[in-house]
Amino acid sequence: MPAFAHRNAVMFQHCDPAGIVFYPRYFEMINEVVEVFFARALGWSFRQMHMVERLGVPMRRLATDFHAASRLGDELDWSLAVTRIGGASAEIEIRAACESEARLTARGTLVLVDLDRMTSTRWPEGRRATLESYAEDRV
Amino acid sequence: MPAFAHRNAVMFQHCDPAGIVFYPRYFEMINEVVEVFFARALGWSFRQMHMVERLGVPMRRLATDFHAASRLGDELDWSLAVTRIGGASAEIEIRAACESEARLTARGTLVLVDLDRMTSTRWPEGRRATLESYAEDRV
Amino acid sequence: MPAFAHRNAVMFQHCDPAGIVFYPRYFEMINEVVEVFFARALGWSFRQMHMVERLGVPMRRLATDFHAASRLGDELDWSLAVTRIGGASAEIEIRAACESEARLTARGTLVLVDLDRMTSTRWPEGRRATLESYAEDRV
Amino acid sequence: MPAFAHRNAVMFQHCDPAGIVFYPRYFEMINEVVEVFFARALGWSFRQMHMVERLGVPMRRLATDFHAASRLGDELDWSLAVTRIGGASAEIEIRAACESEARLTARGTLVLVDLDRMTSTRWPEGRRATLESYAEDRV
Repeated sequence: MPAFAHRNAVMFQHCDPAGIVFYPRYFEMINEVVEVFFARALGWSFRQMHMVERLGVPMRRLATDFHAASRLGDELDWSLAVTRIGGASAEIEIRAACESEARLTARGTLVLVDLDRMTSTRWPEGRRATLESYAEDRV
Repeated sequence: MPAFAHRNAVMFQHCDPAGIVFYPRYFEMINEVVEVFFARALGWSFRQMHMVERLGVPMRRLATDFHAASRLGDELDWSLAVTRIGGASAEIEIRAACESEARLTARGTLVLVDLDRMTSTRWPEGRRATLESYAEDRV
Repeated sequence: MPAFAHRNAVMFQHCDPAGIVFYPRYFEMINEVVEVFFARALGWSFRQMHMVERLGVPMRRLATDFHAASRLGDELDWSLAVTRIGGASAEIEIRAACESEARLTARGTLVLVDLDRMTSTRWPEGRRATLESYAEDRV
Repeated sequence: MPAFAHRNAVMFQHCDPAGIVFYPRYFEMINEVVEVFFARALGWSFRQMHMVERLGVPMRRLATDFHAASRLGDELDWSLAVTRIGGASAEIEIRAACESEARLTARGTLVLVDLDRMTSTRWPEGRRATLESYAEDRV
């Protein structure tokens, strides 16, 4: 299955005094890509996940390479691929590009967490099956 | 020389609906640690660097491990050590802890950039010497 | 002419530990509504305005009533109307609602500013004419 | 009693592409002033208030005048005065200045809210007495 795709625009609020995206704002965008992925690809909105099921998917690890600066008004094309699925975790790779110029690559590990106990918990079977359908086929 | 130290508190604005620090806010804190390090350790404020000298120190790469969640009201003790200095770059290691419990470790690469040309540029000699004094002695 | 319309969703990054929108995030949304209004209604992107023409439209005054809380996942319908146009300023009224429940009303005064001199400057005639077409007819 | 005082510095993360404070960041600072006021003046930390007592103090109304722009590196002196105390609300006036130049004046209405019911609730007597001691004497 191809990677999940999302698009956003670099707005004024994302830019620093040098006129380029301030990198903490990229992490807000990365979180948005993950949030939209769960909602659209898995049918699992963060409202449902957090408020009703009392689960969350915090990052345990995130490594990002910033290839080139993004500027006010740039349209960013994001992709998210699942690269590995564990019992209670998932490794994902997120990329952003603007008109085919790579801007960043982020590799992260999400963990499914029971918010009331703050302990990791296994993916529900149905969610896991959908996650697997987004796992890259890297034979 | 010991690592540079900084302290801040987890405020309401940093916390997500689970009551813990939302990870993009950690990157604002990491940027603050870098900004305070340049101002206090090198005597090089971001105002002087950006506005007068038209230089910046964007991140080229940043890998972060989140060891444990931080909560509203936690006091975070930050440290910054310089682990390698290149001609126009520096590798740094930033750690945060709360009452000796590790919260995150981030390893990043800063690059000194000429903001008008958006190209990397060598550290000025005096700044470089001070940076070196913060490099860890890892014999 | 009817007010300018925009829609966004309350994302995880907007919500506080009480699970509702943290009000500083509403002001990021308000800025987004203004930015999208200038781009779409006036054909004047912030990139063009700020980076090429070296102009900006900072708020001089902003009064906001928060009628009801917004929650993670809410879809917000925004409207922007121009209520008065001065030589170098514009008064606007921005409203947000969710499924017809009012969430906030903000009345602000924008001033067109020359970013290099930081002094106010008159609206260019063409821009002014388009702004006027969005002014409410309140006979 | 004099107004409550707080000081912070304009950091890189607060500034927009024009090199001045982006106004939504001022609202994060205003929230910080309120949070520090409750913690230090009333001995009522937001951790205790939100997490233990399940109460919050959202803004119901906030009117702000931005008198002059603030720049990267500026030290801002904040004051908070209580101008009126209702059964479940408080009106406050917050001012920021830099080296005696006024930067902003904000007048807001806080409401004490039961977070589980999302309804307003009366100030506890002890808290109310301390709030009153910060009310301006405007004979």
